[in-house]
Amino acid sequence: MLTIYAFANMPPPVVGVTRDLRALWTAEEARVPYRVHALDHARGDLRGPEYVAVNPFGLVPAIDDDGLVLFESGAIVLHIAAKTDWLLPASPRERAHATQWAFAAVDTMQSKMTELFLVDKFYAEQAWAKERRPGLVDVVRKRLTGLDRELGRRPYLLGEEFTAPDILMSSALREIQHTDLLGGAPNVAAYKTRCEARPAWRKIYAAYEQRLAA
Amino acid sequence: MLTIYAFANMPPPVVGVTRDLRALWTAEEARVPYRVHALDHARGDLRGPEYVAVNPFGLVPAIDDDGLVLFESGAIVLHIAAKTDWLLPASPRERAHATQWAFAAVDTMQSKMTELFLVDKFYAEQAWAKERRPGLVDVVRKRLTGLDRELGRRPYLLGEEFTAPDILMSSALREIQHTDLLGGAPNVAAYKTRCEARPAWRKIYAAYEQRLAA
Repeated sequence: MLTIYAFANMPPPVVGVTRDLRALWTAEEARVPYRVHALDHARGDLRGPEYVAVNPFGLVPAIDDDGLVLFESGAIVLHIAAKTDWLLPASPRERAHATQWAFAAVDTMQSKMTELFLVDKFYAEQAWAKERRPGLVDVVRKRLTGLDRELGRRPYLLGEEFTAPDILMSSALREIQHTDLLGGAPNVAAYKTRCEARPAWRKIYAAYEQRLAA
Repeated sequence: MLTIYAFANMPPPVVGVTRDLRALWTAEEARVPYRVHALDHARGDLRGPEYVAVNPFGLVPAIDDDGLVLFESGAIVLHIAAKTDWLLPASPRERAHATQWAFAAVDTMQSKMTELFLVDKFYAEQAWAKERRPGLVDVVRKRLTGLDRELGRRPYLLGEEFTAPDILMSSALREIQHTDLLGGAPNVAAYKTRCEARPAWRKIYAAYEQRLAA
């Protein structure tokens, strides 16, 4: 059985962008049965010895797949996706491109978008955040321009079909959905909408909201 | 033949932490023959149409492996390492852990360390950077604590042997080597020294310095 460690609650600003969503979405797309181990952030579950034994960084998500314990959303998405033959390409060459886009999502794109997200959602009133913001917006815009060119050529990162890296990339893009940056990258904006129209996303997102409301 | 796109020159603060080093180091560890395609940063090679066709983000490194073009240092390191049977474990279970640690290096650890690196090396004199620094140091210290606990149990990320994720993790740690943060994480510090004692690292680093001096 696959266990996914997910949030039972969280600070309001991060609702909808937490990375447990990526693991849940992949399991749903892969049609792999799973159970959710909900962690109570407010009670300190993430810092407790039990969870730190699962993820030494105390971050969400992690999974336990029949005794194989894994953390890092990038690795978890690729691991669950590999259980199917429809979320990752079969050829080693195309697999290499899938890995490339998985890293592009969390490294090239997300590392900068998260910083902007933090500035806007946690530090907006601080002087340093106001001064830092234009430089960060500049970098994010540059990265979006590169991605927009790619997504002008094909509907998904690897071509005609939705695959695992699209889960990572479209999820990362949610970190800037409160800004107007996607307006300047129309192919990226259309791509994000396309990804979020998937029934698997809608299903896990509804369950996520229910869990938070409980 | 494997071509590695690397820097011919770069702004002084980033010497020694550029990510082309990771691709070069892996090729050397893997004993895969390669040629270096040196990009003239000062002349604008990274923004030129020829290189943007290789990497849409205009970032270094990228590789061309007999026609397979790849960017993202995380993906490149895993791709080159997979050509050998000594840089990645054989079992799917252990491979999943290798992928996990590759993402931990670039996502959990590096994304925060890069921000601190930029604050110290590019923005140190700006008011926002002085205000932002303590918070960043805090996050980096927390992440180092998690890593330090892990590296207190084994010499390398996956166990007794040096593997591909160690290239990514020890390289990422170079971004904070100008700070005193490694002093508080003795297992991490010893690990970094152990990784950088490898002949392959010393060899490619000497060639890198020569290329910069040319």
